[in-house]
Amino acid sequence: VTRPQALSGFPEWLPHERMIEQQVIATIASTFELHGFAPIETRAVEPTERLVHQGETDKEIYLLHRLQAGEDDDPTRAGLGLHFDLTVPFARYVLENAGKLNFPLRRYQIQKAWRGERPQEGRYREFCQADIDVVGVDTLPDHYEAELPLVVVDALSALPIPPIRVHANNRRLAEGFYRGLGIDDPAPVLRAVDKLDKAGPAAVEEMLREIGLSGAQATACLGLAEIATEDASFADRVRALGVSDPLLDTGIEELTRVVETAREHAPGLLLADLRIARGLDYYTGTVYESFLTGHESVGSICSGGRYDTLAQVGDTTYPGVGMSIGITRIMGRLFGANALTINRKVPTCVLVAVPEEPARSACNRIAAGLRRRGIAAEVAPEPAKYGKQIRFADRRGIPYVWFPQGESGGDEVRDIRSGEQQPADPDTWAPPAPDLRPTVSASKETAT
Amino acid sequence: VTRPQALSGFPEWLPHERMIEQQVIATIASTFELHGFAPIETRAVEPTERLVHQGETDKEIYLLHRLQAGEDDDPTRAGLGLHFDLTVPFARYVLENAGKLNFPLRRYQIQKAWRGERPQEGRYREFCQADIDVVGVDTLPDHYEAELPLVVVDALSALPIPPIRVHANNRRLAEGFYRGLGIDDPAPVLRAVDKLDKAGPAAVEEMLREIGLSGAQATACLGLAEIATEDASFADRVRALGVSDPLLDTGIEELTRVVETAREHAPGLLLADLRIARGLDYYTGTVYESFLTGHESVGSICSGGRYDTLAQVGDTTYPGVGMSIGITRIMGRLFGANALTINRKVPTCVLVAVPEEPARSACNRIAAGLRRRGIAAEVAPEPAKYGKQIRFADRRGIPYVWFPQGESGGDEVRDIRSGEQQPADPDTWAPPAPDLRPTVSASKETAT
Repeated sequence: VTRPQALSGFPEWLPHERMIEQQVIATIASTFELHGFAPIETRAVEPTERLVHQGETDKEIYLLHRLQAGEDDDPTRAGLGLHFDLTVPFARYVLENAGKLNFPLRRYQIQKAWRGERPQEGRYREFCQADIDVVGVDTLPDHYEAELPLVVVDALSALPIPPIRVHANNRRLAEGFYRGLGIDDPAPVLRAVDKLDKAGPAAVEEMLREIGLSGAQATACLGLAEIATEDASFADRVRALGVSDPLLDTGIEELTRVVETAREHAPGLLLADLRIARGLDYYTGTVYESFLTGHESVGSICSGGRYDTLAQVGDTTYPGVGMSIGITRIMGRLFGANALTINRKVPTCVLVAVPEEPARSACNRIAAGLRRRGIAAEVAPEPAKYGKQIRFADRRGIPYVWFPQGESGGDEVRDIRSGEQQPADPDTWAPPAPDLRPTVSASKETAT
Repeated sequence: VTRPQALSGFPEWLPHERMIEQQVIATIASTFELHGFAPIETRAVEPTERLVHQGETDKEIYLLHRLQAGEDDDPTRAGLGLHFDLTVPFARYVLENAGKLNFPLRRYQIQKAWRGERPQEGRYREFCQADIDVVGVDTLPDHYEAELPLVVVDALSALPIPPIRVHANNRRLAEGFYRGLGIDDPAPVLRAVDKLDKAGPAAVEEMLREIGLSGAQATACLGLAEIATEDASFADRVRALGVSDPLLDTGIEELTRVVETAREHAPGLLLADLRIARGLDYYTGTVYESFLTGHESVGSICSGGRYDTLAQVGDTTYPGVGMSIGITRIMGRLFGANALTINRKVPTCVLVAVPEEPARSACNRIAAGLRRRGIAAEVAPEPAKYGKQIRFADRRGIPYVWFPQGESGGDEVRDIRSGEQQPADPDTWAPPAPDLRPTVSASKETAT
């Protein structure tokens, strides 16, 4: 038997890395809850039909079949695949449970998704997303488009990671502008402008001309895409391009509200960036992409937007606005750059040393007493020499070793970082609060 | 478009149920960490070959294929399937990362697993498991067999669910007993005894006779299986059956330690139950099954045991002991019996009412101030009449509504359960601590 190899595109972390990821996820989840978002979790699979309907990603879907199929009620006969995002399952969940949900629904969802695409940096076959959406029935006030980036910024700012900047644009603004220019079909223009970062302005201009735009139209489109401001001054710069259209006015108004709300509540963390296009057709208002300072090359780590129809049954539509944080993309990048550290490899705060095997039961009682007071403790695997038991703790970063003295009392506890050893009572001793849990922090030296 | 239907075997919860499940999982995880177990998470997929090697479950495996395959590096060409438990991926993970792990390794893992079997009560196609294992290199002291059930009992006792009882047996005890009876191959005997609960003693006796046991042998095997004690007195009852064998002695000694340790640290929560067989061949020492009081019919909600070879490379083996809590089985049963409640449908503690739309920004500031002090808050969706905003909070179980009075100060907060309304300062007001988070509790009336 040979050692198994890692599978490209399916990242896995060592225990101390997973402890970091868990703290990141817990911080994000608790921030979402502070903002009143309730959790849901959906099954990993959706009917293939529902997945394929979403178009763009059909060749990336993993379908399931049973190794030995044949049962009558086999669900794979209907065709099941793994979800490739959390939006498609959420839309289905809303339709399925609409009668039991309260709208506007504020929900978050932190789960894995799967895509069969070729792995590369920042692109995985299995990855974790943290989504928030607010969804209404038939209508949804547009102040939620200003609120959502504040929630995301709040969640990510609480982490020891580089600052995030949210880049916002508005589909109505762009489409109104194109219509005002006399362009009938905005979709191919949006798709071309979306390639600006990768292909550069010359190539995009060529694409726009190929679509059939005049030189003046193409120049205006590129002029629009160059506008990026931290305040509402983008509006004047758009107007200066001399295009007018009622939809453009609506878009400018909506984006102004997003920018001004962010300036008030999270100054410097959001900008209007009129080159942000987002590939997906279903966005109808604000769209967002977000970048980690110093790690822009990995791509957007939180994207989303406003959609007028997440789902529809009969005459009822479910408009919403959502953003999705790419947890795996963030962790993969920061682990790769050695940008995050944790000061222990295990959750344990105290290793209770075992003087001799018959004393294990007394050691268990000491550990149980510490745990009752919230102090993570484990008992040493074997009654080795104390030096060996200290090295056992040291290798794992466990900060304290407890030396039981038996019935007579007189236990001592050693801080193995300083070597300081003191008498300690198992019913009252506690470490300084920062030692209770492993601490995640940004590495001092990082290789970006 | 019609409303989608739920998929049999793939349970999903409403948001308030998911809040309950998340609290259950968080309590289990933090108890595991208090005991010094570090988290890992493995990818959802394993090579098909590795999954099929586990025998018994081969017809239940979901294999993956891409909707449009054909890329050169397509991992599905090697054959990938969804894991059906967390043990197979953990074994692979240990082999893959052995050089970077510290042994004995204490790890926990809380994840979904998938089986394509026919759904029935307590059996799902997608389900969540919470596993703990302690794994050593080449050797592992047997005190861990006494420790693991204490960890599980500690985790589940912290929840508002019915008490758990762990039933423990020992493979060496059973195999030594069978050998002492002159039975050469214990495996088919174990498999027959494993059916005792479902088939009853008469049917099992018949199975044992069909395997080739004499009437006296079958009677002795059934006699052994009838022994169940909360203390070490099981040993005398085994000896009274008049069988002797060195392996039997070892097994009795090991199980005695498990029972006595549990009696000291968790009295009444574990019993020696010599009918527990566990189907899987790889167990070599203690085996466990566990039942929720009043819900025994759903089957074991936490099972596991000691194995001498979790994995092997060359001459190196990785012995371990593990237990796996069936989260979905517990939740499905308790939700079905209405045995758990939560006092809110959302995490929100305070709804900030909006007197008029231009005041939203001031309302946002109030909510942000509350959140900075750990109080979950959301701002009302629209500036409706206050009665309507109170009903909005009431439908969700949000306990407090905040009424801003604008620049002049004089805000008030209303406890909508009592109707009491009082002046409140957004910089200092706090609810009583139990109102900060939604509370999960056992329902007073349950239908079991």
